[in-house]
Amino acid sequence: METHLQQEQSVQRRGFLAVLSGPSSAGKSTLLNTILHKIPRLCYSISATTRPPRPGERDGEDYFFLNVETFKHMAATGELLEWAEYCGNLYGTPRQYVEESMAQGKIVITDINIAGARQIRDTMPEGVFIFLMPPSLGELRKRIVNRGVDTEESMRMRMAEAVAEMSAVTDYDYCILNDNLNEAATNLIAILQAERCRVRRTVLHMLGQ
Amino acid sequence: METHLQQEQSVQRRGFLAVLSGPSSAGKSTLLNTILHKIPRLCYSISATTRPPRPGERDGEDYFFLNVETFKHMAATGELLEWAEYCGNLYGTPRQYVEESMAQGKIVITDINIAGARQIRDTMPEGVFIFLMPPSLGELRKRIVNRGVDTEESMRMRMAEAVAEMSAVTDYDYCILNDNLNEAATNLIAILQAERCRVRRTVLHMLGQ
Repeated sequence: METHLQQEQSVQRRGFLAVLSGPSSAGKSTLLNTILHKIPRLCYSISATTRPPRPGERDGEDYFFLNVETFKHMAATGELLEWAEYCGNLYGTPRQYVEESMAQGKIVITDINIAGARQIRDTMPEGVFIFLMPPSLGELRKRIVNRGVDTEESMRMRMAEAVAEMSAVTDYDYCILNDNLNEAATNLIAILQAERCRVRRTVLHMLGQ
Repeated sequence: METHLQQEQSVQRRGFLAVLSGPSSAGKSTLLNTILHKIPRLCYSISATTRPPRPGERDGEDYFFLNVETFKHMAATGELLEWAEYCGNLYGTPRQYVEESMAQGKIVITDINIAGARQIRDTMPEGVFIFLMPPSLGELRKRIVNRGVDTEESMRMRMAEAVAEMSAVTDYDYCILNDNLNEAATNLIAILQAERCRVRRTVLHMLGQ
């Protein structure tokens, strides 16, 4: 499939935004890291943040590092597809980076929680929304425990939140069951490849519509 | 991908009808034959016809062989998704076979001309409509000539028809450019696999919606 996508550069296609979302600890970032370097012209959406850079982090590569004033101005003027506060810092998805990458025919992908995906659906409804479903509640609990970063109380809260969030799946285009990483990756790659064949991204694009 | 689809049988999914269409000589049946035995639970829609069986042809396997009266009754009562006359015989797609196969979770695929696909869109709009685009008019002409079954006049008509039919692509969900059989097959397989991950065929199906 990799070779195939590489060959295909002669066909002019419109890029698109793919949003991978799902309950906490469904395995979103692991899945994304598995496929990210397997597909040419797939790029990860770079977030903006007000938290200071850590050693080695580079502006415009790891994050767009912004001061609070600039961030809030962007949020107010629709320049962020979504944003949220986390641990006292602001995080968001700059619209400009996504749109410029799409204009170059790229697939921009982001992994984000359910609330963030909902905001993106409001600001960019033409995106492709993919829900990653944890295999079972038992397995989900195991993953949350194995992260080892949460207290017992926060683990209980994460579980309750995840269960509540499951119902959001009905707003999505696709659902991938993450009971096997390899299988989930094959499905995600197929979805991205199929979406590139959409009439509105190929023919209508070439016709300028 | 084959192995992957074979593993996946534990997930309950709703089947669907995939319609592969496009201009005459775009390469529909060659492409379909390439992928047909590579995907488990993919089956070819069996047509009904009033032409007599040829030696070796079996009813319910190669065709459903019907008399004219039965065929016309089925057409009149909506039991055919589409039908047409060709060389004095009637051909059509029986709804029952498609629906029974879908109920078993199968993907039913058919290759059909543009007019037939349009009829199917009217009778089963929830189908997945895939347009196969010949690589160029020059290449299309070569294919029509290479078939060697047409007179010069009929070849000219086929070309004119094909050009006129190109504009139908805007009514389709997907467009595959057939400039390379292997690439076209990979795209078709990705589309079928992605469509199996649609929320309405997995989660909503499990919820009985």
